[in-house]
Amino acid sequence: MTDDARRTLDRTLAAIQGPVPEAVAAARARQDQLTKPRGALGRLEDVSVQLAGLAGLCPPPHPAPAALAIFAADHGVHAQGVTPWPQEVTGQMVANFLAGGAVATVLARQVGASVAVVDVGLAGPAPLPAGAPEADGGAADGGAADRGPVLLDRRVRAGTADLMTGPAMTRDEALAALAAGVEVAERLVAGGARCLLTGDMGIANTTASAALVAAFTGADPAEVTGRGTGIDDTTHARKVEVVRAALALHRPDPADPVGVLAAVGGLEHAALAGFALAGAALRVPVLLDGVIAGSAALVAAALAPDATAAWVAGHRSVEPGHALALRQLGLHPLIDLDLRLGEGSGALLALPLLQSAVRVLAEVATFDSAGVVDKDT
Amino acid sequence: MTDDARRTLDRTLAAIQGPVPEAVAAARARQDQLTKPRGALGRLEDVSVQLAGLAGLCPPPHPAPAALAIFAADHGVHAQGVTPWPQEVTGQMVANFLAGGAVATVLARQVGASVAVVDVGLAGPAPLPAGAPEADGGAADGGAADRGPVLLDRRVRAGTADLMTGPAMTRDEALAALAAGVEVAERLVAGGARCLLTGDMGIANTTASAALVAAFTGADPAEVTGRGTGIDDTTHARKVEVVRAALALHRPDPADPVGVLAAVGGLEHAALAGFALAGAALRVPVLLDGVIAGSAALVAAALAPDATAAWVAGHRSVEPGHALALRQLGLHPLIDLDLRLGEGSGALLALPLLQSAVRVLAEVATFDSAGVVDKDT
Repeated sequence: MTDDARRTLDRTLAAIQGPVPEAVAAARARQDQLTKPRGALGRLEDVSVQLAGLAGLCPPPHPAPAALAIFAADHGVHAQGVTPWPQEVTGQMVANFLAGGAVATVLARQVGASVAVVDVGLAGPAPLPAGAPEADGGAADGGAADRGPVLLDRRVRAGTADLMTGPAMTRDEALAALAAGVEVAERLVAGGARCLLTGDMGIANTTASAALVAAFTGADPAEVTGRGTGIDDTTHARKVEVVRAALALHRPDPADPVGVLAAVGGLEHAALAGFALAGAALRVPVLLDGVIAGSAALVAAALAPDATAAWVAGHRSVEPGHALALRQLGLHPLIDLDLRLGEGSGALLALPLLQSAVRVLAEVATFDSAGVVDKDT
Repeated sequence: MTDDARRTLDRTLAAIQGPVPEAVAAARARQDQLTKPRGALGRLEDVSVQLAGLAGLCPPPHPAPAALAIFAADHGVHAQGVTPWPQEVTGQMVANFLAGGAVATVLARQVGASVAVVDVGLAGPAPLPAGAPEADGGAADGGAADRGPVLLDRRVRAGTADLMTGPAMTRDEALAALAAGVEVAERLVAGGARCLLTGDMGIANTTASAALVAAFTGADPAEVTGRGTGIDDTTHARKVEVVRAALALHRPDPADPVGVLAAVGGLEHAALAGFALAGAALRVPVLLDGVIAGSAALVAAALAPDATAAWVAGHRSVEPGHALALRQLGLHPLIDLDLRLGEGSGALLALPLLQSAVRVLAEVATFDSAGVVDKDT
C-alpha cells in the first residue's frame, strides 16, 4: 500500500512540466489581434495565456466539463477547542452535499460542475441520506453534473490525531492520502473532466491550514491564523497558541513536504495536494478554492514547483493565511468578495470567469476578420 | 417629442422607491438559517439581501433571463485628439456586435444574455453586415439570447457636438436620449428580461465620463481622467486639459443633472442614465458595467437617489474616475480584474455571480431541514 502510494506520487511528480513557451507566445500574440484595445481584459488575458501554456495549444481547450472534488476529513485538534462547531458537523455536511442542499452543490448545479464527495478521513461513519447514490457507485467518471453528487470512499484513517500532542498522521498515511487525491483527479479526467475544482469539508481544518502556511512561509502563527467559521476572541487566541505550540513541538521542515503534512496537516490537505499535482501532471487546469486549498498547494508546490502553471486561484479568502499562501505561490485570485466558506464555493464562483477567459481567446474576432481599424497598425 | 420625453422621465422618476424593509429583514434572517457559517458568503449575501429588498420578495426572483443593451454614440470631442482611435471604429464595432464577434457578444452567448445594440447617436450610417437582423427587426423583446444581437435605431442626433467649444447637446436632446434609454429598458422587461445589463460603445466616451464624474464628485480632472483604451502620456495630458477646459466653460451644476448631461455628457451616457432609472422603476436589477455606466449612474442618482437600490456594480475599471463614482454611489464592485474594455463586458462577467447570490438564498438547505447542528442555537 505504501509502496503503491509512493509510486503513484513519484510518477505524478515526474510528469509535471512547466508551460509550453510556443503556446504562451501564440496566446499573447492572439490576444493583441482581437477586436479590443490591447490589455483591456486585464487579468483574464493572463489567465487565457496561462491555460494555453498549460495545454500547449492556442487557444486552449475549453475548461468544461468541470468536476469538483470535496475532500472531507476530521481533525484530532478539534479536542483543543479551536472551534465552536461539533465534530459531527463534518459528516452532517457530507450528507448535505449528497442531498444537494449545501452551497457548493447549489453552485455546482448552476455552473454545470459534477460533484464527488471524497471521504479521506471522517471520524464517524459516512452518512448516506435516502436516495443518495451508493458509496463509490461504480461511477467511472466520479459523477456527471446531471446525476448529482456521488460519495467516494477513500478513507485513510478515521480523522487525524491531535497535532498538539503528536504527529497528525504517519508519513505512510500522508502518502496514502496524497495518492488518493491523485487517483480521484485521474478518475475525473478519465471520465471527461477538463477542469478540476478543489473543495474541502472538515471541522477545525483552518487550524491545520494555518500550521501549514506558517511552516511553508515562515510567518508567525498570529499572522496566519484566522477566525475560520467565525470564532470569538478567546477561541481565536487559543487557536493561535495551538498553532504556535504545534510548530514548536514538530519543527516542521519545509524541505520535507510529506513530513510537514504528516506532522501538522489534515487528510484532506494531503489529498488536495495530490489532486492539484495530478491536474498539473495531466495538464488540466485546477481551480483552487480558499485557504485549505491554498495551504495544500504550498505542500504540492514544495514537491513540484512547476505545478503552479496548472493552478488558478478562484478567490482570496478572508482568512489571513490565504493571502500569504497566494503570494508565495505567485497566484492572483479571480474573486475577492470576503468569502470564508470553503466546500469549493470560491472555485465554483470563479469557474465562469475562467471559462470566459478561454472563450474570448477562442471566439472573439480579430481586427482583420471584423474589418475594424486597429490604431496600432 | 420633448414633452413626451419629459413625461417619460417624470413618470419613471415618480415610480422609483427604496427597498422594501420587510423583504430585507426576511432575507437577512434566511441567510442566517442556511447551512453555512453566518456571513461566510461575504458580499454575495449583501447582494442577495439587496435584490430581495428591490423585489419586495424573499427569496427574490432569479435574475434571468438577462438582457444587455449596448448604447452606441459618437463624440464631438474626438476632434480634440483625446484618443488615437478613429471615430469610425464606433460604427465598425457596432457591426462587430451584430456579427457576434466582439467580446461582449461572445460573453453574452456564454452567460445566456440577449444583446440589443442601440444607436442613440452614431456619427455615420449604422452598418448592417450580411445576415444581421434588420434594424429594429420588429422584435418586441429586443432580442432573445438564442436569436443573436439586434440593432435598435433610437438615434437622437449624429454624434454630440464638441464639449470644448459648446454644449455637447441641447437639453431637449439629452431628454430624448434619457427617454430612449427608459423605453429600451421597458421593452426588454416587457419581453421577459429579469436583469438588465448596461453596455456602451463610443470612441472618446471616457472623456465625457471623466467630465461627468468631475462634475458630480467635485474631483479634479487629473484625478478622474484615465487612459481609456490605452493612450500615451501626451494624449493623456491633453485629455485632462480638455476636461478641465470643458468644466471651466460650462460650470456644470450637479443640482441640474439634465443640464450637466447636455453640457458635457454623451448620448449613450444619457440613454444609460434612463436605462438605469427604468430598471429601478420596474424593480428589475441593473448590473452596471464600468466607468461609462458609473458616470451615467451619477446622473441618474442625482435625478432619483433611491434608484441605487436597483443597481449592482459589475466591476471596478482601471479608469480612476470609476472608483470615485462607485464610492459616491455607495456601490461595491463584484469583480476587480483590471478590466478597461466597456461594451458591457464587466457586467456580463459579473452576471453569474449575481445569479449565484440569488440561487444560494433560494436553494440552500437550512440547518433544520438538513439536520445539521447549528453552533449558535
